[in-house]
Amino acid sequence: MTQTSATLGHTILTQADQLARFSDMEGGLTCAYLTPAHRDAQARLAQWMEAAGMQVRIDAIGNVIGRYEAGPAVQDARVLMTGSHFDTVRNGGRYDGRLGILLPVAVVGALNQAGIRLPYHFEVVAFAEEEGLRFKTSFLASSVLAGRFDPALLERQDTDGITLQEALAASGLPGAGALEALRAAAVDPAMLLGFVEVHIEQGPVLLHHGLPLGVVTQIAGSSRFQVRVEGLASHAGTTPMGMRKDAAAGAAEMILLVEQRCSAAPTLVGTVGQIQVPDGSSNVIPAACTFSMDIRAGEDGIREAAIADIVAGIDQIAQRRGLTAQVERVPPVNNAPCARWLMDQFGAVLKKRGLQAFELPSGAGHDAMMMQRITDVAMLFVRCGNGGISHNPLETITAQDAQLAAEVFVDFLRHFQPRG
Amino acid sequence: MTQTSATLGHTILTQADQLARFSDMEGGLTCAYLTPAHRDAQARLAQWMEAAGMQVRIDAIGNVIGRYEAGPAVQDARVLMTGSHFDTVRNGGRYDGRLGILLPVAVVGALNQAGIRLPYHFEVVAFAEEEGLRFKTSFLASSVLAGRFDPALLERQDTDGITLQEALAASGLPGAGALEALRAAAVDPAMLLGFVEVHIEQGPVLLHHGLPLGVVTQIAGSSRFQVRVEGLASHAGTTPMGMRKDAAAGAAEMILLVEQRCSAAPTLVGTVGQIQVPDGSSNVIPAACTFSMDIRAGEDGIREAAIADIVAGIDQIAQRRGLTAQVERVPPVNNAPCARWLMDQFGAVLKKRGLQAFELPSGAGHDAMMMQRITDVAMLFVRCGNGGISHNPLETITAQDAQLAAEVFVDFLRHFQPRG
Repeated sequence: MTQTSATLGHTILTQADQLARFSDMEGGLTCAYLTPAHRDAQARLAQWMEAAGMQVRIDAIGNVIGRYEAGPAVQDARVLMTGSHFDTVRNGGRYDGRLGILLPVAVVGALNQAGIRLPYHFEVVAFAEEEGLRFKTSFLASSVLAGRFDPALLERQDTDGITLQEALAASGLPGAGALEALRAAAVDPAMLLGFVEVHIEQGPVLLHHGLPLGVVTQIAGSSRFQVRVEGLASHAGTTPMGMRKDAAAGAAEMILLVEQRCSAAPTLVGTVGQIQVPDGSSNVIPAACTFSMDIRAGEDGIREAAIADIVAGIDQIAQRRGLTAQVERVPPVNNAPCARWLMDQFGAVLKKRGLQAFELPSGAGHDAMMMQRITDVAMLFVRCGNGGISHNPLETITAQDAQLAAEVFVDFLRHFQPRG
Repeated sequence: MTQTSATLGHTILTQADQLARFSDMEGGLTCAYLTPAHRDAQARLAQWMEAAGMQVRIDAIGNVIGRYEAGPAVQDARVLMTGSHFDTVRNGGRYDGRLGILLPVAVVGALNQAGIRLPYHFEVVAFAEEEGLRFKTSFLASSVLAGRFDPALLERQDTDGITLQEALAASGLPGAGALEALRAAAVDPAMLLGFVEVHIEQGPVLLHHGLPLGVVTQIAGSSRFQVRVEGLASHAGTTPMGMRKDAAAGAAEMILLVEQRCSAAPTLVGTVGQIQVPDGSSNVIPAACTFSMDIRAGEDGIREAAIADIVAGIDQIAQRRGLTAQVERVPPVNNAPCARWLMDQFGAVLKKRGLQAFELPSGAGHDAMMMQRITDVAMLFVRCGNGGISHNPLETITAQDAQLAAEVFVDFLRHFQPRG
């Protein structure tokens, strides 16, 4: 490797800063799917991939895919794939997802400068959508690569009433023939050697253990719900407290139930991230209150037991208060285990460098979760600063940790052995 | 009186139905200040006032004022004023406010047809704004008549960013010279004999007592607040429950505190009618949660004691959870007592008709509350059906009760004696 490799950490952080300037908002980073900021980020990523020595294509959902061709002597090369997403949550962090694109691109650039070719095709995917901000669906981009795209989503509308199909067409992607193009964009699983993803931990575990890197054991499944509580609108000044059917007060009790029940088991977490009294007025008792519910755990059984208790508790609260409650479940995502043979190859590199081959589960969902449906996956976590905060502008990593992660990734790629 | 008077109840209900067709929404009644629907309602009310034999003017805030001139023989006549508002809450009832316009207009029509003049000028005011839906301020219209208009409100914006001043200009009312015009629209208190208001009760008390009408003793003051709770946004999947600073969970606990504390004293009511997680996402722990708080009681002391407890409790909850909470108080409205001499004149009419002169406080605020600052006021409550529900499409009164109220009002006007 040339001297370039010693500055990989710095390059990655600088590029993350540059990419964060493309934002849908002032004074923070929001990059929703197919907005002008998103398309600027997409174009910039394509430039960087080309500069690193990759062949770049953009697929029908907007993924940017850079390919570092196997060395010329290799016969019938298959593909090792890596990547992560470049869309963000609202006012999010600049490393979430993007680290898993910028790091392998920087690594390829260093390999290319050093004239090093790999004995397989190496592809870096910048997934266009994972967070679900615009169309309230996650894994849109990885579902296309995995051949799992749901055609019904083409009619899904954003908050401005623009359908996914219209948004695709407006971005210069196939609109009319979207479905065929999206199907054709699926990768052939037989061609894949596996999928590995580098990601900021988005939590405090590595930080608390004083470790820069960790190997992910599994990606926790999540269950999302939309709850709608209905009561009876009435006058805030004249309706005695005992005669009310207040949907918001009922929802408040349910929200505290989620918090309480999800505090009762380790790895279990429950979040109500959205609450609204539709058309609420300060002087009217709420007729309705809606909220979202996101429940995850390290084990499917723990998660499902909590959900059963919470749904039953919501019913009880509604009945006691004379309200109705509808709990609509978004299809759950089950836990995705990482492949031991891939984990062990990351672990071997870490140990060779004198680092602990620390293993930990991922509480957050990742593109690797979708890719795990068609190939073996592994993930390398990078320590998250500021107490492990993420989905927040305070999200941070150090240049030293990025450098170390890049060096580990280079070693992993150079010593990678396909499953025997 | 002619035969017309026997059909007053029917006329009032029919006109309420007709007026309810002017709405900002499909399938329900919303009439926000100075919307196209509101201006249609304004024009229709002016037509009905003219048809009833009144001289009609529209003042600088959009109030429609019909004047039934004193008989020609009366020297130096002063003004007895009545009226209520024709704006509504969102998806509200068709009698709230409007009954207090349509009933006296119908009564004037009957008097006029019978050739009966009164020994004073009688003015019916259709107040353009009382509910605060559009500009988050109530008593806008009555504050102009009472000479209490707050000039700062001219710059207040609606949710589309349109200022009150711009909305006035767009409606053909004085925009540029709004402030002088609004000041000139104030009535001279020395010219007033008093202000009386007919209103649907908006509560269950008359219904439960089996009484069609009641005389109001006082109008309960209200206190409104905007509460903003702030925590820390973080990832919903990776942040352990014990490390969260969840603004929404904190708000939920505060909302239940409002409910619990306001259930602890009779006549005390507390309502959280609006809740929001600004820019919330289902997979992000809420960094902020805002809610409205409306607290009322039959006595100022009971209300203020509850407020003190609730504000202290909100602080405690915020501190325990590592959150901050800002409680911003909208200037409170104190209880407005009705004038005994006016109440007694309503009571005398009721008794003469063999009805009980039942007295009750008003939990809701009314235009009479603002007028009480410049003159003596009284209110006649009409029974509210459907369990007393109001601020709801289910709000209802019977034609019989409307008829009875109109007859009582005619008697009141014909036997009215100025304060001795």
